Amino acid sequence: MTFNGAEAFVATLCACGVDTCFANPGTSEMQLVAAIDRQPGMRAVLGLFEGVVTGAADGYARMTGRPAVTLLHLGPGLANGLANLHNARRAGSPVINMVGDHATYHLHFNAPLTSDAVGVARPMSDWVRVARSPRDLAQAGAEAFVAAMEWPGQVATVIVPADHAWSGPAAPVDPRPAPPVPRAPAAAIAEVAEALRGDAGPVALLLGGRALRADALEVAGRIAAATGAKLICETFAARVERGAGRVAIDKLPYFGEVASEFLAPYRTIVVCGTEPPVAFFAYPDKPGALSPPGAQVLRLAGLREDAHDALTALADALEAPAQPVDLQPRHVPDAGARLTPEAIGAVLADLMPAGSIVSEEGISAGAALFDATKGAAPHDWLMVTGGAIGQGLPVATGAAVACPDRQVIALQADGSGMYTCQALWTMARERLKVVTVVLSNGSYAILNIELGRVGVQNAGPKALSMLSLDNPRLDWCALAAGMGVPAERADSVAAFRAAFARALTAPGPMLIEAMV
Amino acid sequence: MTFNGAEAFVATLCACGVDTCFANPGTSEMQLVAAIDRQPGMRAVLGLFEGVVTGAADGYARMTGRPAVTLLHLGPGLANGLANLHNARRAGSPVINMVGDHATYHLHFNAPLTSDAVGVARPMSDWVRVARSPRDLAQAGAEAFVAAMEWPGQVATVIVPADHAWSGPAAPVDPRPAPPVPRAPAAAIAEVAEALRGDAGPVALLLGGRALRADALEVAGRIAAATGAKLICETFAARVERGAGRVAIDKLPYFGEVASEFLAPYRTIVVCGTEPPVAFFAYPDKPGALSPPGAQVLRLAGLREDAHDALTALADALEAPAQPVDLQPRHVPDAGARLTPEAIGAVLADLMPAGSIVSEEGISAGAALFDATKGAAPHDWLMVTGGAIGQGLPVATGAAVACPDRQVIALQADGSGMYTCQALWTMARERLKVVTVVLSNGSYAILNIELGRVGVQNAGPKALSMLSLDNPRLDWCALAAGMGVPAERADSVAAFRAAFARALTAPGPMLIEAMV
Repeated sequence: MTFNGAEAFVATLCACGVDTCFANPGTSEMQLVAAIDRQPGMRAVLGLFEGVVTGAADGYARMTGRPAVTLLHLGPGLANGLANLHNARRAGSPVINMVGDHATYHLHFNAPLTSDAVGVARPMSDWVRVARSPRDLAQAGAEAFVAAMEWPGQVATVIVPADHAWSGPAAPVDPRPAPPVPRAPAAAIAEVAEALRGDAGPVALLLGGRALRADALEVAGRIAAATGAKLICETFAARVERGAGRVAIDKLPYFGEVASEFLAPYRTIVVCGTEPPVAFFAYPDKPGALSPPGAQVLRLAGLREDAHDALTALADALEAPAQPVDLQPRHVPDAGARLTPEAIGAVLADLMPAGSIVSEEGISAGAALFDATKGAAPHDWLMVTGGAIGQGLPVATGAAVACPDRQVIALQADGSGMYTCQALWTMARERLKVVTVVLSNGSYAILNIELGRVGVQNAGPKALSMLSLDNPRLDWCALAAGMGVPAERADSVAAFRAAFARALTAPGPMLIEAMV
Repeated sequence: MTFNGAEAFVATLCACGVDTCFANPGTSEMQLVAAIDRQPGMRAVLGLFEGVVTGAADGYARMTGRPAVTLLHLGPGLANGLANLHNARRAGSPVINMVGDHATYHLHFNAPLTSDAVGVARPMSDWVRVARSPRDLAQAGAEAFVAAMEWPGQVATVIVPADHAWSGPAAPVDPRPAPPVPRAPAAAIAEVAEALRGDAGPVALLLGGRALRADALEVAGRIAAATGAKLICETFAARVERGAGRVAIDKLPYFGEVASEFLAPYRTIVVCGTEPPVAFFAYPDKPGALSPPGAQVLRLAGLREDAHDALTALADALEAPAQPVDLQPRHVPDAGARLTPEAIGAVLADLMPAGSIVSEEGISAGAALFDATKGAAPHDWLMVTGGAIGQGLPVATGAAVACPDRQVIALQADGSGMYTCQALWTMARERLKVVTVVLSNGSYAILNIELGRVGVQNAGPKALSMLSLDNPRLDWCALAAGMGVPAERADSVAAFRAAFARALTAPGPMLIEAMV
């Protein structure tokens, strides 16, 4: 069998175990489309906007630990996907991008779509490679897989000149093994162990990245049992395995001064799977680093080191008990009378089936939703890791593709939902089991808070109009219907509860517009 | 009066004549929001996605020749706007981007939204500058204006660190004059004149950029009267002033081999306001340059030279008659029985009021729409200059903001319309007089054609599914309703005619979903 470059490239990716392509192709990618067509091992999922494609690849990676491949149309198509690649990088998600480009001999014509594809790729990729020949394409694919699998995951981008895709001869290359998982330095573990055995004062264990999976959390719970350490979840985590029966963990608050207050009691802060806590934004006359002045901050393991292993080594060094601290009991808060984020969280805590996956982009509602659901049936909670909004619906889409047997729930603020609302169409097309709850408050509510926090007083109507989504009010039920997703509106707790219960029984996606 | 950096920056832009801001701000831009709020001379128009913002700035610039300023949220927000900045650059549109970034002293924390904003800006900007201090911000604004006004227009991006925005002291700086319009070299004009006076054979005059405005076209028509030259419009033009009573011009076809055939009769091709014609994409075994082999190709003026002046000098050198060639007569084609792009064009030719502005992103329907409307009342026609789709609705939005007294008509393919469908909300909020006609064919129709053209035979269902928008079918009436734009569906010529006539009388935006 003879291969052209595109066929050898796609076959190589398949051999590496890449079985899903999130795609938004154009003319320069038609040979890649044809190559995917001929590969029974690769599923193709169309997105109607590139931010859907890259965000779905992120969601897929968070749930599988493996990269999906994206298919994007030259520099401008890649550009549309950058914001969610930024989030994917911050999540440590493995993603492979295949980006078509003009034929090598066509670039000098400077045709309208000519752009600096490498320049577009670089700011949001950990690794970029331009294929050098038809034969080199397969090699680039194998290397991209290794780069993407650099623990816990990286964004790897391959630029595919059209003539290399359609020309031969080429042949698939053998997959290379994923790189080993780097271990945290033994000295770091020893230092933390020594500190915790001594006079460490009140201790906080700030967990992020892979330290938030159930197995690592269980070990962290044993360390807490040994040391009395408070377990804290980083503010924007890629994936937290939580809920009833799992080790309970509170989240570091978003606003810097609230986070500082939250951390103030602790004299020792041990960081695992993430970096020492900093404010999301700077504000005039407010500190950027959030650890209490004078506290010792110790780094057990970073995002790119094996957090579970480091926690286990620490637990061993501390001779921690086999049982973790008290596990989170099943708990359903009172939903109250008004439909608020807290009430939505309470209904979720009551009704969410075990094994649910929550993609949460609640923005101003995020903290309340997280808190209210801590005693829900065991579930995964995915957050906006990089602060680039428009992540929630695409990540829900990718998670549902990755885990067809699990219920996905997208908790989506209305303002941020609009950036990648096209994801609803992919949910409908693929009949994904996603219940989208839009928290409709008609406002960039977070910005109305932030305006005062950066020192703006007496904002006038023009400023406020730039933060308001009223006039006209978005109708998310109509938007969903426009993309083939059945929807209903809820403006009371009872209505929301009934709608959510119905949505869980639907064979495909549903959207509930919750008027909060 | 004392200014902080943001106030001085915005006041400087106002002094330069920048009176419109298309905005999608975040926390790091709150001081810029406040500064705009305090400037009565600057209008703020909110977009719910950054591609709407940058595309609207392009449309505004095409109609005014002046830059609007965009307001974008750090690297990821800018990234979302890049595709339409690519189109703006290709259109030669003046645009100023103001992009917030973290406070300078916060960058080292590598907080979640930290990114290489300059790296994101560079591929789609002609000019990039990071403000160096609060006081430097105003200076950067004045320089950005000059850079944007580099004839006929450039994309100029200023990165605004948040602490420079909120700190002082700062003061506005005086505007600098826009740079002069470069003239084409006299030698180029003399060379073309000599060629056309000699044995040039059949001559084609390929016009682009500013050569497609009515005044320049009139001179081109005089040259045609003197030489018999065929006047040809570049395939993707920023703005063509055309219609009944104006100099008629045909468009160079999109597909390379059709374009080659179209140009085959000509022995001399004179290029003005653009570059010699090349294929949009490369295809296996098809040429990239479209001029006939052996033809002489002469460059009268490029995109960045004064095309009107060059044409006038050429007309003088040729002692061209005062009257241009026959002007385009008023002409309304027969709409026929079926609702096709041709029929839609025919209805438009009949009903479009004089002075209409058409933002056309018809993709596979573009040529038919352009051809059918050549005898419509005089109007402007704006096209997708850079091939980055998702331009049509944003450019229509910006054109309507620029020209509130003129009717704007967006002719929008369904597939490309989805990329920036959020523009409909801005149309509704600003009550813009835009009639959007969605040509709904449920397909990336152009890609179904391109698939065969790049050599793919026997495409299977997986490949075809990546080019299809059916399953589910998009409901554009519902999408429009979701964003506050009244809409109706038309599936016959009579229904479309009636709907279009009604839409022209609406005080604000309307959408017609034309089932073609």
